[in-house]
Amino acid sequence: MKYRISANVIRRLPRYLRWMRFLERQKVEKISSGDLGERMGLTASQIRQDFNCFGGFGQQGYGYNVSDLRRDIGSILGVDETLSSVVIGVGNLGRALISNFRFSEYGFRVTAAFDVLPELRGAVINGVTVRPASELEDYLRSNDVDVAILTLPQAYANETAELAVRCGVRGIWNFTGIDFDGDLGDTVVEDVHLSDSLLTLGYYLRARQNTKEDI
Amino acid sequence: MKYRISANVIRRLPRYLRWMRFLERQKVEKISSGDLGERMGLTASQIRQDFNCFGGFGQQGYGYNVSDLRRDIGSILGVDETLSSVVIGVGNLGRALISNFRFSEYGFRVTAAFDVLPELRGAVINGVTVRPASELEDYLRSNDVDVAILTLPQAYANETAELAVRCGVRGIWNFTGIDFDGDLGDTVVEDVHLSDSLLTLGYYLRARQNTKEDI
Repeated sequence: MKYRISANVIRRLPRYLRWMRFLERQKVEKISSGDLGERMGLTASQIRQDFNCFGGFGQQGYGYNVSDLRRDIGSILGVDETLSSVVIGVGNLGRALISNFRFSEYGFRVTAAFDVLPELRGAVINGVTVRPASELEDYLRSNDVDVAILTLPQAYANETAELAVRCGVRGIWNFTGIDFDGDLGDTVVEDVHLSDSLLTLGYYLRARQNTKEDI
Repeated sequence: MKYRISANVIRRLPRYLRWMRFLERQKVEKISSGDLGERMGLTASQIRQDFNCFGGFGQQGYGYNVSDLRRDIGSILGVDETLSSVVIGVGNLGRALISNFRFSEYGFRVTAAFDVLPELRGAVINGVTVRPASELEDYLRSNDVDVAILTLPQAYANETAELAVRCGVRGIWNFTGIDFDGDLGDTVVEDVHLSDSLLTLGYYLRARQNTKEDI
């Protein structure tokens, strides 16, 4: 099943999925676009427009079936399939992801982790074995790895990304904070910049403070 | 200095700041909207429109002065001021933030951390002392804390957020994955959903795969 969905709608899909999963846990069976919009801070028409991109399934006067939506959106996002990934860099953040992030809920699985520290060699974290960084290339060439998760220092980000891509990795989840200079071809790169989020928080906090001071 | 800047522009400011800082490190002194747009994947007119919201400072034929832009955008985002914050939950993610996240570059400072584990009590991570969770309320009431960073299990997210807000915290950086049910008043809440980022990566990876299979 293929859809031509605009990037704007795609950006909203993960949030819709979160809400559908939440509503399902609350045993809500159906919901109107208006009700959902109120909860999500979106207009009812935006929601209807978005859902129409992949089939709609709503019924006039009935609203949308929550489980159906959850399944459809989950299917579009591929959560029932499994993309294999490796974590490169087992510092605090890498360890946090391996230990606590529920990859399987999003259609992913961490099959191996890599780090340079000798004391981490052979460590097993949440079922994932840490291997020496020197074994990364061999592992990638011998196994079908879809995604490299980069949680290593910035200084090694470029060369590691390029190595991963040379070895057939198709996507990169990039926590290093840098943007890649090198040509990574048609590799899908998703950058995570926690700083953007914090700066946004700071902006609104200071704006609110300034507003109050004017009163 | 106050600006009426739309939410869409505000959302782009952190990324502009990152680029200006990067260009400064590269010793680039000036840049045209066209050149910057090419590097950032934005149109020149979008960039000019955005910069006009807070003064512009570009000169026809000259382009923009990188350091000036870095200072102006940094100033709007408040990076030279300091908002005090506490980290609540010193698991892998909390520890990652305390150890590695460069808060001061974004106008923040972590003054204390809290956790329930007895063995963490008194631990000093990157200069931040971990205190027992039982001391959270007293600390918040005795100190001027602007932001609570929630990196604790979901089960305790709501009650902790409500406690923090009752004690005067004005902003919450929320890594727990839940959306807050309770009324947090006009507290600024910034949710971090790493899963949204991973789902987006997965979507584009699978879409690319599907496209190739059709050829």
